[in-house]
Amino acid sequence: MKVALSETPDPTSEGEHAEDNPAGRLGRDMFSLVSELYPICRSITGDGVRRSLDIIERTIPLTRSEVPTGTGVFDWEVPKEWNVRDAWIKNARGERVVDFRTCNLHVLNYSAAIHAVLPLAELRRHLFSIPEHPTWIPYRTSYYRDAWGFCVTQQQLETLRDDEYEVMIDSSLTNGSLTYAECYLPGTSTDEILISCHICHPSLCNDNLSGISVAVFLARELLGRGHRYSYRFLFIPGTIGAITWLAHNQSRVERIKHGLVLTCLGDRGAFHYKRSRRGAAEIDRAMAHVLRSSGGPHQILEFSPYGYDERQFCSPGFNLPVGCLMRSVWGTFPEYHTSADNLQFIDPDALQESFDVCRAVLELLEQNRTFRGTNPFCEPALGRRGLYRSTGGGSVDPGNLALLWVLNLADGAHSLLDIAERSGMAFPVIAAAANELASHALLVEAESESQR
Amino acid sequence: MKVALSETPDPTSEGEHAEDNPAGRLGRDMFSLVSELYPICRSITGDGVRRSLDIIERTIPLTRSEVPTGTGVFDWEVPKEWNVRDAWIKNARGERVVDFRTCNLHVLNYSAAIHAVLPLAELRRHLFSIPEHPTWIPYRTSYYRDAWGFCVTQQQLETLRDDEYEVMIDSSLTNGSLTYAECYLPGTSTDEILISCHICHPSLCNDNLSGISVAVFLARELLGRGHRYSYRFLFIPGTIGAITWLAHNQSRVERIKHGLVLTCLGDRGAFHYKRSRRGAAEIDRAMAHVLRSSGGPHQILEFSPYGYDERQFCSPGFNLPVGCLMRSVWGTFPEYHTSADNLQFIDPDALQESFDVCRAVLELLEQNRTFRGTNPFCEPALGRRGLYRSTGGGSVDPGNLALLWVLNLADGAHSLLDIAERSGMAFPVIAAAANELASHALLVEAESESQR
Amino acid sequence: MKVALSETPDPTSEGEHAEDNPAGRLGRDMFSLVSELYPICRSITGDGVRRSLDIIERTIPLTRSEVPTGTGVFDWEVPKEWNVRDAWIKNARGERVVDFRTCNLHVLNYSAAIHAVLPLAELRRHLFSIPEHPTWIPYRTSYYRDAWGFCVTQQQLETLRDDEYEVMIDSSLTNGSLTYAECYLPGTSTDEILISCHICHPSLCNDNLSGISVAVFLARELLGRGHRYSYRFLFIPGTIGAITWLAHNQSRVERIKHGLVLTCLGDRGAFHYKRSRRGAAEIDRAMAHVLRSSGGPHQILEFSPYGYDERQFCSPGFNLPVGCLMRSVWGTFPEYHTSADNLQFIDPDALQESFDVCRAVLELLEQNRTFRGTNPFCEPALGRRGLYRSTGGGSVDPGNLALLWVLNLADGAHSLLDIAERSGMAFPVIAAAANELASHALLVEAESESQR
Repeated sequence: MKVALSETPDPTSEGEHAEDNPAGRLGRDMFSLVSELYPICRSITGDGVRRSLDIIERTIPLTRSEVPTGTGVFDWEVPKEWNVRDAWIKNARGERVVDFRTCNLHVLNYSAAIHAVLPLAELRRHLFSIPEHPTWIPYRTSYYRDAWGFCVTQQQLETLRDDEYEVMIDSSLTNGSLTYAECYLPGTSTDEILISCHICHPSLCNDNLSGISVAVFLARELLGRGHRYSYRFLFIPGTIGAITWLAHNQSRVERIKHGLVLTCLGDRGAFHYKRSRRGAAEIDRAMAHVLRSSGGPHQILEFSPYGYDERQFCSPGFNLPVGCLMRSVWGTFPEYHTSADNLQFIDPDALQESFDVCRAVLELLEQNRTFRGTNPFCEPALGRRGLYRSTGGGSVDPGNLALLWVLNLADGAHSLLDIAERSGMAFPVIAAAANELASHALLVEAESESQR
Repeated sequence: MKVALSETPDPTSEGEHAEDNPAGRLGRDMFSLVSELYPICRSITGDGVRRSLDIIERTIPLTRSEVPTGTGVFDWEVPKEWNVRDAWIKNARGERVVDFRTCNLHVLNYSAAIHAVLPLAELRRHLFSIPEHPTWIPYRTSYYRDAWGFCVTQQQLETLRDDEYEVMIDSSLTNGSLTYAECYLPGTSTDEILISCHICHPSLCNDNLSGISVAVFLARELLGRGHRYSYRFLFIPGTIGAITWLAHNQSRVERIKHGLVLTCLGDRGAFHYKRSRRGAAEIDRAMAHVLRSSGGPHQILEFSPYGYDERQFCSPGFNLPVGCLMRSVWGTFPEYHTSADNLQFIDPDALQESFDVCRAVLELLEQNRTFRGTNPFCEPALGRRGLYRSTGGGSVDPGNLALLWVLNLADGAHSLLDIAERSGMAFPVIAAAANELASHALLVEAESESQR
Repeated sequence: MKVALSETPDPTSEGEHAEDNPAGRLGRDMFSLVSELYPICRSITGDGVRRSLDIIERTIPLTRSEVPTGTGVFDWEVPKEWNVRDAWIKNARGERVVDFRTCNLHVLNYSAAIHAVLPLAELRRHLFSIPEHPTWIPYRTSYYRDAWGFCVTQQQLETLRDDEYEVMIDSSLTNGSLTYAECYLPGTSTDEILISCHICHPSLCNDNLSGISVAVFLARELLGRGHRYSYRFLFIPGTIGAITWLAHNQSRVERIKHGLVLTCLGDRGAFHYKRSRRGAAEIDRAMAHVLRSSGGPHQILEFSPYGYDERQFCSPGFNLPVGCLMRSVWGTFPEYHTSADNLQFIDPDALQESFDVCRAVLELLEQNRTFRGTNPFCEPALGRRGLYRSTGGGSVDPGNLALLWVLNLADGAHSLLDIAERSGMAFPVIAAAANELASHALLVEAESESQR
């Protein structure tokens, strides 16, 4: 899939995308970041999140927040902080048959501490496996419940003989804080574009180290150039993190004009974009346009109140124009929430393509303005200005057609995206035509109408 | 076809539907009422209507009206009252070759009186038959015209030899009155639901003893329990009855928030619902939702100004939200308006199913309210209240999903039917979720918005 | 394809259409006009246009305008006037191998004058041909550029040997004027219907002598009878002519309630109607209704800013409700803009059919009014007035149904076209029903609502 960013190379870009990317350098960089973050045991609170942010901070600047346990956030309360140092199950011979150090998914996320010797029958009530995929470890959590447990492969489970087992989970659930970070990039306008990704999942690559990585490199790309919108990248634990951020920024959310939740962007599946609750917000139309123009397989999904943090951003009190971009959709691929969502499951090229789609959407939003023609009565004389390639033969050059579409619809009531949609032409072609016409004083930007 | 009424059994119901109906008792009761009404010769006025109302009154309370001949009702006038005692054609040997006592369809409905001896050639100008169905008697009327005639089978017609015939119709057309009845069931609100059925057809089962019977048993069912809406069941002669009722209740029709004309509900065909003139009134959407949720074959028809009394209720001066529920549509089945629309043509199970669809629609309207979440900012913490079954595995329980849909759209602008339609979930599931949330004070009913 | 004009013959018409047309006289008359105009060399200015108007004026009255070279018209300027008297290429033996007198397409339209002797290599840079169609001469123009050239068949091109050639184009480009004409037919209202056709193409029949001829005979037909709308027929050079007319009539265009650009109406292809920029203007709906009702093959095209003079009429400052009717679409048939667009390419029957479609659309617009029922509450008693044919059998006569549709929707908010569209019945049937009801005082025309 080829995603067109703009008609002409951007002179302010570092040129990396245009020149180096055919070789896939950006995709490999994103994959490297995923690889570095992969081993860390993260949860909705705790040191794993902090260590992950340390790594991200090597690429982009972050502002961190620590919100104390017990802080009220809307209908919720920031939970105790969870940390885990080690966890194992030893057989009667003292051998670690299940070992947190091998894979942090082995411990039930947010598990209470335990150290006990148990018969197999009792132990099994605390073990979770996936019979259909005997070599995969499931990812399970016990947020907001007092429970302990281990996630194991079905093979491990079946090799456990009827015996006594020593179990140990060296975890702590204490007063502490919830950690999140923002990367805010001011633009010429205080209107904001929000990019949010959840950072609470442990060793799972697609969900959501892929989303984190795409967000980090989008921010890095924007750092290097001017932009109209201000951008706010959120690296937050799922649900409670979004709720906490919204509770602490309630007065500021009206600045958010468009938003995306990024997740599951590293696998090889087709793109899926879930619309915002509004359904036809500019972000929804921009994403649909970019995906359709790309020519690649993709699907637009209606909003539903289950999923990722768009649930909170699109709750009725906020109703923000925030959609969610995924490749494969959570719950629809067998590797989802298992140890098979690993580095083999994701792909540098897929990450790159996901980046390109996001980049094209942001570029579209940046350029999507509303113009008014300075000669609204009849067509202006394009030929005289050298803008029209006359063939004298009745056919029409696509560039000419783009000029005519922009002139015809630039009435202060149609954005460039409106014009692209109605004309069936790609946004960059329409935007380039508008720029050319504006440079000949045939268009001026309309005022308030563009602030939709 | 299974029609879901509600999630939980209604404690105020007599339990008949839930317990006895698998055996079809209600369907059999409705069929029995049809059987009892079947032999009576009805018309738009006269004693046949009164005798029919006597029978209906054994099941539900009625308020009767007698409107005198000559009363002006909008552009019309109540006609003279017609009654018929006997009618026959005798051959030269004095044998009744056509006999009203055998089937009341034999006499042209509203036929003038006659007693004469005629040659066959002249007689034949007063005989109506159906050549394609040689054993069926057609149903024909001569309202508002001075005419006499007999309806006969094609077989009867063909056995008539060229001879003299004595014809006698002992009918009277005199000053009298037009009779109709109402069953009014007050609810907690004065907003009304109107259920109307025509009672003017003689020995025809589907059109419309079936509609009468379903209406009677809907009223009986509502008698046994509380309800929000007030219900008005009309048992009226077609056209002139509706016009008369509307003329005498013009100031009261604004209370009618939803309405249904019931007819042709006993045959074995698929349901057909004809929308109101408004096209997207709540009754139209409710019926479409119930039929779609039922999974059974059905068709939604656009409004047209021909049909039953929806013609009058949907005339432009009233434009009431009144649709028409049928199984097979008038004029599309060969038995329509013939003696073949008899007790064999209808079916207790079909009547029961028709009742169930109406009952589900009324239940939907009763429960269709508009709520506002008390925690509109982010999702409330459902788990803490024991409302959320967390699997920790990312899949979502349908009950949880219904809770989330209601919370997301309960913004005072979406009714529960809106939420059911947008979520694609069945109304009873959404309504149950709303009730559960309201019982935890997470929802309150929105005020004026619900009065749509 | 049969196009219904109205239910009853129009007593004010000359009867030609109804009586003579089965023999195709009107089609033959239109074809004759095309034949007479065919040999003339037209361009956007010059004597060819004037001679063409002389011929048109024998059939309908015209008001001519001559706009001097250099006159500013919006962003444009009226160009110098071009005339050509002769043009040829002679070979070394002095033989005319390319000769303007054979076909005026041989000279590049608006070519500068030249008289020179050139080697073949240099000459070829000024020759245009169509390799795929070796016997056709292309039609090319050099408006607004200083260039000279010849259009030749590919066969001619290939017979030219490497030699010296004498070329001569006896053309002049001088201060003069742009010529256009109007035929204005006042109606009872000052609201106008605009019919526009371009008159700048030389010997090309479909594009656009066909459009001219249909326009001329539509005007002639309207001359013979009364009409509600005023009609303005424009015979103008393409683009610059429309711009000039709009510039000189800017204050008057608000009177234009509907408009059509007519072109390519003589070939045997299916009809194509290109909507106005508004997309759902009354002219757009009227044309779609007439084409759909005709039962013939046709296609409705969305507006685009490329094409004929609808480009100017639909520029954003005017945004007039002007669509474009064609049979085959410019650029989609190989004969387009070549010498093969000749008298063999068009057809009297096709011209006649095009006329009939336009005539039916104009008739629809004339009759499309908005009524209000005088008995809005319930149906009026049609039978009493002899308006209703009661069969007593439940089926409905289409005439009755039309009466009921009109009564049901005649609420001051639905035009007759609205009623035709919603009922799915043909406009003339609905209009006849409305007339019948109005004659019984059951309808009155609604006031301002009809002025849409």
